[in-house]
Amino acid sequence: MLKLGSMGALASLAGVTSEGVAEAFADAAHPAVPKWNVFELTLQGPSTGNPFTEVELSATFALEHRTIQVDGFYDGSGIYKLRFMPDAEGDWSYTTSSNAPALHGKAGAFHCVAPESGNRGPVSVRDAYHFGYADGAPFVECGTTCYAWAFQSEATQRQTIETLAASPFNKLRMCLFPKWYQHNHKEPPMYPFPRNTEVNDYSTFNVEYFQHLDRLIQALCRIGVQADLILFHPYDKWGYQSMPAEVDDRYLRYVIARFSAFRNVWWSLANEYDLMQAKTAKDWDRYAGILAEHDAFDHLRSIHYCFHQYEYGRAWCTHAGVQDSRLYLGANWRNDWRKPVVFDECRYEGNIASTWGDLSGDAMTRRFWLAAVQGCYCGHGETYLDPNDILWWSHGGTLHGSSPAKIAFLRNLLEETIALGPGPIGYTNFSDEPMGARRDNGSVVFYYFDEHQPAEGTFTLPQGKSYTAEYIDTIHLTRAPLPGEYSGNAEVKLPGTPWGSLWFRQKGLA
Amino acid sequence: MLKLGSMGALASLAGVTSEGVAEAFADAAHPAVPKWNVFELTLQGPSTGNPFTEVELSATFALEHRTIQVDGFYDGSGIYKLRFMPDAEGDWSYTTSSNAPALHGKAGAFHCVAPESGNRGPVSVRDAYHFGYADGAPFVECGTTCYAWAFQSEATQRQTIETLAASPFNKLRMCLFPKWYQHNHKEPPMYPFPRNTEVNDYSTFNVEYFQHLDRLIQALCRIGVQADLILFHPYDKWGYQSMPAEVDDRYLRYVIARFSAFRNVWWSLANEYDLMQAKTAKDWDRYAGILAEHDAFDHLRSIHYCFHQYEYGRAWCTHAGVQDSRLYLGANWRNDWRKPVVFDECRYEGNIASTWGDLSGDAMTRRFWLAAVQGCYCGHGETYLDPNDILWWSHGGTLHGSSPAKIAFLRNLLEETIALGPGPIGYTNFSDEPMGARRDNGSVVFYYFDEHQPAEGTFTLPQGKSYTAEYIDTIHLTRAPLPGEYSGNAEVKLPGTPWGSLWFRQKGLA
Repeated sequence: MLKLGSMGALASLAGVTSEGVAEAFADAAHPAVPKWNVFELTLQGPSTGNPFTEVELSATFALEHRTIQVDGFYDGSGIYKLRFMPDAEGDWSYTTSSNAPALHGKAGAFHCVAPESGNRGPVSVRDAYHFGYADGAPFVECGTTCYAWAFQSEATQRQTIETLAASPFNKLRMCLFPKWYQHNHKEPPMYPFPRNTEVNDYSTFNVEYFQHLDRLIQALCRIGVQADLILFHPYDKWGYQSMPAEVDDRYLRYVIARFSAFRNVWWSLANEYDLMQAKTAKDWDRYAGILAEHDAFDHLRSIHYCFHQYEYGRAWCTHAGVQDSRLYLGANWRNDWRKPVVFDECRYEGNIASTWGDLSGDAMTRRFWLAAVQGCYCGHGETYLDPNDILWWSHGGTLHGSSPAKIAFLRNLLEETIALGPGPIGYTNFSDEPMGARRDNGSVVFYYFDEHQPAEGTFTLPQGKSYTAEYIDTIHLTRAPLPGEYSGNAEVKLPGTPWGSLWFRQKGLA
Repeated sequence: MLKLGSMGALASLAGVTSEGVAEAFADAAHPAVPKWNVFELTLQGPSTGNPFTEVELSATFALEHRTIQVDGFYDGSGIYKLRFMPDAEGDWSYTTSSNAPALHGKAGAFHCVAPESGNRGPVSVRDAYHFGYADGAPFVECGTTCYAWAFQSEATQRQTIETLAASPFNKLRMCLFPKWYQHNHKEPPMYPFPRNTEVNDYSTFNVEYFQHLDRLIQALCRIGVQADLILFHPYDKWGYQSMPAEVDDRYLRYVIARFSAFRNVWWSLANEYDLMQAKTAKDWDRYAGILAEHDAFDHLRSIHYCFHQYEYGRAWCTHAGVQDSRLYLGANWRNDWRKPVVFDECRYEGNIASTWGDLSGDAMTRRFWLAAVQGCYCGHGETYLDPNDILWWSHGGTLHGSSPAKIAFLRNLLEETIALGPGPIGYTNFSDEPMGARRDNGSVVFYYFDEHQPAEGTFTLPQGKSYTAEYIDTIHLTRAPLPGEYSGNAEVKLPGTPWGSLWFRQKGLA
């Protein structure tokens, strides 16, 4: 299995599990923790009674005038943990608070140093409609989905990490609960709660289950992939979709306490929330409130629907994570909600009998382009029939389709663009259908022609700037510079092929 | 030029222009006129004054208990004509009525005989959503557009007829007025009204202009193409879009009197009616009323819009002639309006700078399939840049695109299908996007998978019947029988390629 603590500060704490060592650590003089890594404090406390429900533990971390409170969590065998992600270099101190005397009043300090190479910090919303890392670099969201990868064989999990590392995808949607659905009709290797045949013991958690999730989230972090954690979902035979309210809440607080110090965490309240009939609008509000109140690191938050679109304008949502195939609505929604719009699910490349999972690779690629040209983001998934019934969309493993390479090509283009600065983003909706549109940051203007194939056109460029032009075939992945310079209302001769994209780049800025 | 009267009964009348001959004809014993051909009566009458406004002429045709009244028209040089299309075999008689004594009370008869080979009669609505010829054969509408072909060189007009004859297209949208628009910036060779520099003399018609249109409509008839006559349009520099109301009405009655006996006529009140700012809703109602009242042969009637969809549910419309790219709405509209839905304009195959004229051939083909699978019809047009600026969409000439061959392939498939009987037509809208759907006449059920590529699927077939299956690649035009027989909830293995179509045919009916 992927080893807990094999990254950053956690690595140095991996052995800290025996009683007394944590206290010794607390007395150590300023260990070094790279910025946006995890400082983990391990404490020994009561193991009798029900530590999950009876023991309260939190800590307040302080840097100069700032204080941040985080919850601790019970990790079994009398071990309690507190995880903290420092977001500023300097000397941090902390003090614990607990109703258990053994856990109360523990104080200490650490020194937060510069982040190691490749650590850009957590992602948040940038320039209203986009995302960026905490270090200032843009984050060109490019997601995929392996809903139930956490519950597959170790070999498949390792393969999933390897595949992702070689893919264009930098965000992974994954369920925290096991999944029961077509192609997903087997029991998971572990359950989140102790389970006796058909009965869940909701009074405690199965810490091994969550330790495993720790490792997966960190493995994703190591390869630069955001873990978009789906907190609830309806595809369930075990009862997790209809737990008592206090169990839902305790589960959320436990998950927040465990995972929120991992910088690559995003929260998705649910997959297809509207199919979860046991839950009411008030439940979803309450969950959102718990996230907002207890996640000290303010990770990105959204929710995913099936039929009834969520009101993404609501304050708790940091971005929209829609399920829709109408890519051409993206720009309108973006303007309506004033948030980033991610088409987290717009059907998948594959060949299964379900119409949501049988897109051609080029159709999947096209959706990424339609999103990009509107200043939105798209999500990938793959559902090719497999003799071992391992479908990327749920199980992970390997990718078989043609879209990832084409999506990688697009991501590279977008990263070149955004590196020039996000600037004002324009959008031209030419008609009643998805077609040529543009994304404009002043330095780069691009059009996507979709199924259109103009052999010429007039394109209005920002005043006072001179541009070079390049014609891109989004399917055959060719890039051809067009001769000359362009400015004002630029008349351009084009190859007249479908699935093309025209890029104008301000001269001297490449 | 294509010769007037070179078809059917008109041919036998081509020389009947001198005074007295028409009367002699009226005395002739029962000339033979094939059913749905034109019986044309030519009379000599007043040539002084203004025959267009001062002379009223009509005739009543009778067969047994039935009587049908048609208007006559002035054709210049003292010649008046009455045209009649008999729709039943037998001995017809007629009597004229006029305020001009020379034209009044002319009586005669003709014998309507069986139609000649290839003459199936006019097209009307069949089975609520479809079309059929008067002889009972289905008409699989497959239209194209050459708006201004009537005003091009004679060579181009001849070429247009030759191209059409070799194409899959069996309906042509064409304007009766000349067109002024991009790629259409030249004066026509003739004007419909006498014109003195910038001033139209609306008191008379230029009969040569309309004689020329006679010939074109008949030339289309000879090659089996319906002439979808566009009565008004906004792309005009001469004033025809804003004539006085009484001129509009006189023009309509003249056109009806001249053309309505041609069996291949369809009426389209306008192209982009909503761009004609001089006209009000009451004007359009009045025009519709004139058509309904004076067209004795009750040809198909519709209207075409740009931005504001016409209310096609209105009684005068026989079918909807929409301009829209949202092909996936077809089935809904069909159900709303309870009429055939023809996407007369859904953009064109081509490569011009305008987004309405730069679809790839495959994108055009796809639209035909999306219409067909919903039990609707689509319209073609072609706008490839041309060194002589002859674009099929307006001028006719030759076709350059890849879609006509693919559309021909579809039309053949549909004609095979419909020949089995239209039956009940079902539609399955699987989702929020155009995708696999089916058209079902009980004996044939077909699905179109669009950009989806399922490798397997379960398809529900009508109970109690056994089917063979065929997989069709709509782009590469291949047809591959699938092994075995299918019935009930049929599980089918498919090639898993995009742009496929699956056809089930009842065994023993092929």
